[in-house]
Amino acid sequence: MTVHEQTLLSLYDDMVTWRRHLHQYPELSFEEHQTSLMIANLLSSWGLEVRRGVAGTGVIAKLVGKLPGRTIALRADIDALPIQDAKNSSYSSTVPGVMHACGHDGHTSELLAIARYYSLHQNEMVGTRIFIFQPGEEVLPGGAIRMIEEGALEGVDCIYGIHLWAPMPYGTAATRPGAFMATPDEFEIEIIGKGGHGGLPHQCKDALVVGSSLVMALQTIVSRSVNPLDAAVVSVGRFNAGSANNVIAERCKLSGTVRSFNKEVRSLTRRRLEEIVKSTCEMYGCEFTLKYVEGYPPVVNDVNEAGRVLRIISEWLPETDQGPCDQIMAGEDFAYYLEQRPGCFFFVGAGLQDGASPPHHHPMFDIDERAMLIAAKLLIAVSDDAAKEAR
Amino acid sequence: MTVHEQTLLSLYDDMVTWRRHLHQYPELSFEEHQTSLMIANLLSSWGLEVRRGVAGTGVIAKLVGKLPGRTIALRADIDALPIQDAKNSSYSSTVPGVMHACGHDGHTSELLAIARYYSLHQNEMVGTRIFIFQPGEEVLPGGAIRMIEEGALEGVDCIYGIHLWAPMPYGTAATRPGAFMATPDEFEIEIIGKGGHGGLPHQCKDALVVGSSLVMALQTIVSRSVNPLDAAVVSVGRFNAGSANNVIAERCKLSGTVRSFNKEVRSLTRRRLEEIVKSTCEMYGCEFTLKYVEGYPPVVNDVNEAGRVLRIISEWLPETDQGPCDQIMAGEDFAYYLEQRPGCFFFVGAGLQDGASPPHHHPMFDIDERAMLIAAKLLIAVSDDAAKEAR
Amino acid sequence: MTVHEQTLLSLYDDMVTWRRHLHQYPELSFEEHQTSLMIANLLSSWGLEVRRGVAGTGVIAKLVGKLPGRTIALRADIDALPIQDAKNSSYSSTVPGVMHACGHDGHTSELLAIARYYSLHQNEMVGTRIFIFQPGEEVLPGGAIRMIEEGALEGVDCIYGIHLWAPMPYGTAATRPGAFMATPDEFEIEIIGKGGHGGLPHQCKDALVVGSSLVMALQTIVSRSVNPLDAAVVSVGRFNAGSANNVIAERCKLSGTVRSFNKEVRSLTRRRLEEIVKSTCEMYGCEFTLKYVEGYPPVVNDVNEAGRVLRIISEWLPETDQGPCDQIMAGEDFAYYLEQRPGCFFFVGAGLQDGASPPHHHPMFDIDERAMLIAAKLLIAVSDDAAKEAR
Amino acid sequence: MTVHEQTLLSLYDDMVTWRRHLHQYPELSFEEHQTSLMIANLLSSWGLEVRRGVAGTGVIAKLVGKLPGRTIALRADIDALPIQDAKNSSYSSTVPGVMHACGHDGHTSELLAIARYYSLHQNEMVGTRIFIFQPGEEVLPGGAIRMIEEGALEGVDCIYGIHLWAPMPYGTAATRPGAFMATPDEFEIEIIGKGGHGGLPHQCKDALVVGSSLVMALQTIVSRSVNPLDAAVVSVGRFNAGSANNVIAERCKLSGTVRSFNKEVRSLTRRRLEEIVKSTCEMYGCEFTLKYVEGYPPVVNDVNEAGRVLRIISEWLPETDQGPCDQIMAGEDFAYYLEQRPGCFFFVGAGLQDGASPPHHHPMFDIDERAMLIAAKLLIAVSDDAAKEAR
Repeated sequence: MTVHEQTLLSLYDDMVTWRRHLHQYPELSFEEHQTSLMIANLLSSWGLEVRRGVAGTGVIAKLVGKLPGRTIALRADIDALPIQDAKNSSYSSTVPGVMHACGHDGHTSELLAIARYYSLHQNEMVGTRIFIFQPGEEVLPGGAIRMIEEGALEGVDCIYGIHLWAPMPYGTAATRPGAFMATPDEFEIEIIGKGGHGGLPHQCKDALVVGSSLVMALQTIVSRSVNPLDAAVVSVGRFNAGSANNVIAERCKLSGTVRSFNKEVRSLTRRRLEEIVKSTCEMYGCEFTLKYVEGYPPVVNDVNEAGRVLRIISEWLPETDQGPCDQIMAGEDFAYYLEQRPGCFFFVGAGLQDGASPPHHHPMFDIDERAMLIAAKLLIAVSDDAAKEAR
Repeated sequence: MTVHEQTLLSLYDDMVTWRRHLHQYPELSFEEHQTSLMIANLLSSWGLEVRRGVAGTGVIAKLVGKLPGRTIALRADIDALPIQDAKNSSYSSTVPGVMHACGHDGHTSELLAIARYYSLHQNEMVGTRIFIFQPGEEVLPGGAIRMIEEGALEGVDCIYGIHLWAPMPYGTAATRPGAFMATPDEFEIEIIGKGGHGGLPHQCKDALVVGSSLVMALQTIVSRSVNPLDAAVVSVGRFNAGSANNVIAERCKLSGTVRSFNKEVRSLTRRRLEEIVKSTCEMYGCEFTLKYVEGYPPVVNDVNEAGRVLRIISEWLPETDQGPCDQIMAGEDFAYYLEQRPGCFFFVGAGLQDGASPPHHHPMFDIDERAMLIAAKLLIAVSDDAAKEAR
Repeated sequence: MTVHEQTLLSLYDDMVTWRRHLHQYPELSFEEHQTSLMIANLLSSWGLEVRRGVAGTGVIAKLVGKLPGRTIALRADIDALPIQDAKNSSYSSTVPGVMHACGHDGHTSELLAIARYYSLHQNEMVGTRIFIFQPGEEVLPGGAIRMIEEGALEGVDCIYGIHLWAPMPYGTAATRPGAFMATPDEFEIEIIGKGGHGGLPHQCKDALVVGSSLVMALQTIVSRSVNPLDAAVVSVGRFNAGSANNVIAERCKLSGTVRSFNKEVRSLTRRRLEEIVKSTCEMYGCEFTLKYVEGYPPVVNDVNEAGRVLRIISEWLPETDQGPCDQIMAGEDFAYYLEQRPGCFFFVGAGLQDGASPPHHHPMFDIDERAMLIAAKLLIAVSDDAAKEAR
Repeated sequence: MTVHEQTLLSLYDDMVTWRRHLHQYPELSFEEHQTSLMIANLLSSWGLEVRRGVAGTGVIAKLVGKLPGRTIALRADIDALPIQDAKNSSYSSTVPGVMHACGHDGHTSELLAIARYYSLHQNEMVGTRIFIFQPGEEVLPGGAIRMIEEGALEGVDCIYGIHLWAPMPYGTAATRPGAFMATPDEFEIEIIGKGGHGGLPHQCKDALVVGSSLVMALQTIVSRSVNPLDAAVVSVGRFNAGSANNVIAERCKLSGTVRSFNKEVRSLTRRRLEEIVKSTCEMYGCEFTLKYVEGYPPVVNDVNEAGRVLRIISEWLPETDQGPCDQIMAGEDFAYYLEQRPGCFFFVGAGLQDGASPPHHHPMFDIDERAMLIAAKLLIAVSDDAAKEAR
């Protein structure tokens, strides 16, 4: 069975309609009630076996092909972000302060189209497909863990997922074997010194100086402690201390992100951060609190499955760069599925035609909707290829 | 002529009344309209030659004694602060967000009492007294410059002023020859880098790291560039950078204070600060703005006049610590008068009896009102002593 | 033609003899006169066409097989190091302060054995072999540039080289496509401040503090300026300032190494280092000198040739780790050959059997001599494979 | 009794002769055998009661005046320094590597002249004089402690001492009440990290970076922890780490000096230094050793005695600056005498006439010998003034 491109093309208008509807009525993480209802209704209307309320607002659907084969899961995330849509378009968000600024509306629509596609070609379909519509990808700890706990991967042999990716132009796709996306940890530090008159530093413990010293010391994690061959980032994103020019700051708040691609590096960077915070505060006689939140694990693609995806990308998109792409510093809770099953997560270029796509999470974010068609085509090709393999 | 203590004692109730009235109706810097009117009316009613509207809301009064002698100026500052009074007392401020939290109400009342005192003893009074009620001591550039420009020191031989000082207990007074109070400069720095994704530092210029590096480099001004025998402080009081954990900060704002006791040290610290800011930003390819506001000059007491004041303090307050006190890291625009005329500024202990006086500029600030009596007594004794000296 | 293992085995004793002779009589870079003579004599005695005096003490030999095919170059480096041999062995260096502490004696012997091998099998040999015995790999700018300038690569289609590698156990081999070994730049900085009495810092410009500040600022090159996905190291190896406890240092000398794997990163790290040195010295009013010496370029293996080598390794050493190995932070002037021709440099495990091999350049350094046999076998298999390919 | 200037003038040639002899035959601390012998012989020849071998090579002599009065001690230090004399003069040091580069030869000669003076005027001399010729002022713990332990201050009411001071011009003298000279502590730190290949920082603990971080942190002692009104210096004078550009330093040695003027500040700076060293090393997982040697205590002049000396200076040297001079960052073991008895240490200007005196401890050091005459005159005037005071 090869991909029935004509069928897919005939579904493109639906995809755009669904996506624009979702874009106008975005719902925040774990509050995707209407989104979930729309998904379930469509899937049911096409005859799929639908399970609602997974992980709260998640939906899982199943379709068994007439020809024997393996069970392949495909996953889309369905939540929007707390961002005010700034686009001036016919499908701009109607919900104040909420927006599909990461493309999950496109993911949802493209996966709906795939489900519809298979329902139309069930007779020649090999194996089984599980369609996972997951809530809450945008907020820790993410919806994937609960989806798995509530059975999303039962009987599944392989799993695939995509991200429509604005920094890549329409017509491209990319992935890499092994560690692909980072683990995005976050930390919050509060240094508690002793405030006082700006002219009397000896009566104080200047938390602002302690914080500055800390920031400089944290640079050594990447420059000295991490293997230069391993990618890692420690960024302090916020630093707030003091409230008046002539008063020495009693408290200093810092927060930031730590990113790496494997557990050893994550563990090392976390340990070094903790040691440096502790010793820096002790050096200046300050108290501190440190909250370290581990983000999603790294997205680690199965080597063989990434090979499959890269092969199919090169067949379908011969113009795109061949071979593995670079690692990506962002995180994804698709990582949890890949901890349980072989599979592969990949990017599908969705940059706007004029080449000036705003970045993900930007108030002006938008996608080239035709990328949904490419995403659907690739996922069908990949899952068909995987389904017919011997167990 | 010795001080007529009985006269002063009889004026004490007035002092308290005036002070409490002013405390209930405080007025911000350069808006001391009612305060000024009350002062002028009282002075006129006692027969002094009164000049209103000096430096806007300032008042200058003159009284010529019957016996020949020098012309001595005494100065009080009359403005209040933009602070909400938090005291629960019969004389709490009635003006929301405005409060006499630095004792200027006491300064005004004590100087009024002195004027009344001399008007009652004009026959035996030696020389002339100039009473300077100055507006706007609390905000740069201060009221002293305009008072002087508008003639406050014309014909004046010497000038004296006091500060009621809550950190010192009632019954004490202190000063020192030479540099006594600091020059309190302020600076504001904005570092302009390039923001971006927390995982992609190489695409950014991390203003937060530049700011931290700057704070550490600024420590070397005092530790390396200033003569260890000179007192100087460089304190960064505020540091604000970034708005999200996982976004690299585009801008970093720092502000602080620089304090020293002479022009050479001030000039050195300012130059070093400017050099360090410039080089640090260049090092990281960042732009910056630097606003440096020179505060009042240091208060430098004339050596002989400080000797006179210390002698009189030791006569009238034999229990207080003898000899020169330490330098004070706060600033005062009385400095400008001392740049023009010999004179001396000194502190009169006004700490509350229970020993737990809130610091100046605190919402709970208050004084031991009896300190006004000591202040008046000392200023009369000092000015009488100075007036009879040969020109 | 497959590798005649029996022939190679019969040459093993010679290899050991040659290697131990060279080990006893090591010669420093560009002074390899006896080494060169021995190599040329052996090659001539086996009937090869020998060219001496290339790049001073280099030797190039040529052997044309009876069967048509491409021209394949194989390269060995022949110089020793200025290190005192500390081994107690029958073949310890007899030259005080000079030692083969990097395995070049093994490289030379193994390449001699390959030449002998082909001279014995010339009838069935496909294509031509060029044997490059290069002087001066250990000292910048290396011997490779001159060897190439003097014709070493004329007519050559592909080139291969190996390093016997003590950190890898005997029986293994490894390489990777693309950037494999680093570019090892070096820098020397002298900061010129102003010395003086330890108690009078304000009269000085403390070069020691400037140097310390510089070291901390240099950490940001890797932590902030380099893409986290690119490997880079900036290490200050030496810091010397001051000569007495109570004298402020006038001068501070720092030197170190910068390593990366491509020209963009090298150019970026060099530029950042220069900017940081300049701005740091300006910040403290110090003069400086900066000497930056670019080391060899990165060793970048041709993707196809590395594929060929990895394939042959997996055939001959099925027990070794498959797939590309990590990048190596050391440098090699083999890089220059790879800038001119496709080819591949790879590592052959030569760790001592007891698992406690001293590191390269260590006074106790030694190799498992059997690794020479593996190296020869792999190079023959690789060059035979490459020779028979169509041009 | 006023000073017999004619007698002193007649002794000037002897002073010069003695001083030049001592200059040619300098002896190191606690090895002043010939110096001691010469002193003792001269004093005995003048009829003084002489005690030898005090604190090893010290000499104490006593002379009782015919008129009753107090007992006044005068002290000179007699040791030379391990410096090679670089002067080209008739009286250059004849001892290789040893030199009177601090003026102690002048101190000794001037005190001998005073002893001779009093022996000639014993009939009109008031009170008793104790002449203390102390060894070993230049090396910790100094000779003063043992001199005192062995009785130098027995029966003594007051003590005075001077330093011929090259930075001040001939014809001047200076001192100040209270803390006058600093306490010069020294420290030595060794940081023990883990060395390794310059390209593999993650396998190391880079002691050089730890040392640099430490130097920056130490700046905060003076900038933040010490009262800005207190003078203090923390200078790292030496920093040595690493031995090769491409090897990460295993060890880092730092040493320096800490100076302050009272025990509280010394105790604070020492404690902060210890805390900062400990926490910095802990931050990077390094071991360390810290050796802190407390130097002489601060020289604290008795307020009244300093007043006496200042008064006599102003009488005898009316051209010199009046009033107390600044504090001096150098140390002196005269401090120990002042911990036991009231007294005063003061400086007598000895700068060369051409105004380009090399600093103390410089190989070209020399003094204007006429300063010995001024020193003798002032010490006689001061001790006569002190001797006649009631006990």
